[in-house]
Amino acid sequence: MAHLEIEKREFLKGLNLMQGIAGRKTTLPILSHIYLEWKQNTLFLTGTDLQTGVQEALTGIVHEEGRASVSSKKLFEIVRELPEQTIQITKKENHWIQLKCGKSLFNLAGLDPDDYPSLPSFQEKAFSKIPTTLFKEMIEKTAFAASNEESRYHLHGILLTQQRSGGKEILRMVATDGHRLSLIEREGQMIRGVEKGVIIPKKGVLEIKKVLGDKEGEGEMNIYVDNTHAFLKWERSLMVIRLIEGEFPEYDQVIPKQNDKTMKIGKEPFYQSLKRVSTMISERAEGVKLSIQPNFMELSSNHQDYGDAKEEIDIQYQGAPMEINFNARYLMEALQSFDSEEVVMELKDEGSPGILRPDLSPSLSQQLSIIMPMRI
Amino acid sequence: MAHLEIEKREFLKGLNLMQGIAGRKTTLPILSHIYLEWKQNTLFLTGTDLQTGVQEALTGIVHEEGRASVSSKKLFEIVRELPEQTIQITKKENHWIQLKCGKSLFNLAGLDPDDYPSLPSFQEKAFSKIPTTLFKEMIEKTAFAASNEESRYHLHGILLTQQRSGGKEILRMVATDGHRLSLIEREGQMIRGVEKGVIIPKKGVLEIKKVLGDKEGEGEMNIYVDNTHAFLKWERSLMVIRLIEGEFPEYDQVIPKQNDKTMKIGKEPFYQSLKRVSTMISERAEGVKLSIQPNFMELSSNHQDYGDAKEEIDIQYQGAPMEINFNARYLMEALQSFDSEEVVMELKDEGSPGILRPDLSPSLSQQLSIIMPMRI
Repeated sequence: MAHLEIEKREFLKGLNLMQGIAGRKTTLPILSHIYLEWKQNTLFLTGTDLQTGVQEALTGIVHEEGRASVSSKKLFEIVRELPEQTIQITKKENHWIQLKCGKSLFNLAGLDPDDYPSLPSFQEKAFSKIPTTLFKEMIEKTAFAASNEESRYHLHGILLTQQRSGGKEILRMVATDGHRLSLIEREGQMIRGVEKGVIIPKKGVLEIKKVLGDKEGEGEMNIYVDNTHAFLKWERSLMVIRLIEGEFPEYDQVIPKQNDKTMKIGKEPFYQSLKRVSTMISERAEGVKLSIQPNFMELSSNHQDYGDAKEEIDIQYQGAPMEINFNARYLMEALQSFDSEEVVMELKDEGSPGILRPDLSPSLSQQLSIIMPMRI
Repeated sequence: MAHLEIEKREFLKGLNLMQGIAGRKTTLPILSHIYLEWKQNTLFLTGTDLQTGVQEALTGIVHEEGRASVSSKKLFEIVRELPEQTIQITKKENHWIQLKCGKSLFNLAGLDPDDYPSLPSFQEKAFSKIPTTLFKEMIEKTAFAASNEESRYHLHGILLTQQRSGGKEILRMVATDGHRLSLIEREGQMIRGVEKGVIIPKKGVLEIKKVLGDKEGEGEMNIYVDNTHAFLKWERSLMVIRLIEGEFPEYDQVIPKQNDKTMKIGKEPFYQSLKRVSTMISERAEGVKLSIQPNFMELSSNHQDYGDAKEEIDIQYQGAPMEINFNARYLMEALQSFDSEEVVMELKDEGSPGILRPDLSPSLSQQLSIIMPMRI
């Protein structure tokens, strides 16, 4: 009799969540593996790249307890192709496992499961609760602004911090790549241990988003942060992320306080216009020029080889005319992170950073994007 | 007034068809361009890489005749982003063109249209007719077997040839990469000029498929072949493909005549089983082993690092047991080219090529795939 029986669908769901973590290019062969442990009618899958670890508990029938470590990618490829039937798994000699499903039989090489790195441990009682969709939304509205450049490691994460205002707890996330910054706050949310600010790496945050994206329903997740790791638990998933050490930039000083040229712009027309004008932006990244007049704005661009583009959109603005250059992609990504029909843009002059906000009641969301201008 | 007015949707449809041809990496800048000529309320778009040329006639309103040569990729990117409205095109100085649509205005750099290479000319009267879907089907059922290796230039094309049997005209297509061969015939079809056999390059054939794939309805296409080019016309499209010079392999001698071990296999179970067992095929391409017994076949594979797989399927076979190794992908691609529920496999011994055919009445389709075995 097989040691473990599990439905293909259930197994594949779990393996799918491991793919982003285990199996990346790695010099340590066992990190391309996942760790399997089956006991008490549960199959626990664990994957880790030593920065981010994921554990999933899957439902199966365990006839004999066991553990294994096999290639994450290869196991995924095999299970994906199997028919929608029960898979029978048996531990064999020399750390191999056997998979049987329908008329298919696979023998899969493994490594000693004792050598698989274990996830950091945590205290069960210290978790804070936060609505899952709210946490996911806060990630989506900030993570895009974090740096992708490996060389800027301290800008490579999302700051998670706790504020207090008028007796209310406020959870804040901030991300920046040095050229732009995104910030979102939510009142009445509290994660213990982040008061001084912790930096979660972008990779880990995107894994959270991916894993949450596969979960249905509302519900709450549990978060616990210690000096070195963030631990996230929900339903039958556990995620452990190593925090980035070091100081997050003093972003409060970057938020402009004197941007007195305020205008309201339809989000979708602004976005579509930027998308069109972007086709003529030079690879030398000269950006899009915004020429602002009372009640309208001209967007223009030119490309050293291909030519130029311009377009007008209506805005609500009564101030003095001005011109400013921005990276069009930064503007578009900020707009995409807003839920409102209209956005507010606050500018000072052509050399000062601009602020974009969704045009929403402050009680709904405190959110802003700051974008540095480019030289005209 | 603009020189030409054309709906965005119509323009984009034509530009889309040009993308595979013009704009490829090229050392000659004008080959990344398309040629536009507007006259008599028609916009003619032409793209060519000097091997394959496409011309599309689009409907517009011409106020003043003109010609231009502009970047295929950039024009496509711009038009794709424009709103679903009328685009106004005006020829400007120095070979530039201006596009206006809604509130957008683009000035696009161009080259002298006189420098754009013209497509080879042809005789209007000499065309043969063939049903469009039939021609497309014949391409789909052979082209996959042609070589992708640049070094095997003479295997880089599809042979188009004309046979005569029992007083009937038969159109035949053949493709091979030296390891496998696909052949399809259709009775009652005749293309003048291909009697001795002409070789159409795979790239060109895949462009035909792409362009035909965008066309709806049944209809007929017109084909004309001279010593150097094939000309294809249908609806408002023209395609010109330079033929490959040289000899196609003597494929008739390759078709085995003494394969006396004949079996019938369900196409879908065979295909699915190959797909599963393929997950354990080594990168060293050791292939899948077929172990054939009366009424069943075992498929097996093994990978030097990951392990092994095997699976049984039922077959209709009464002959002697045998084993043979094949490249699993070649088997799968042959199966995918067949329309029948069951397939016939004809083998001789482990060292001789195998034949696969759809299990269809010979009057419906004459089609076969020959695959060389791999060493066991």
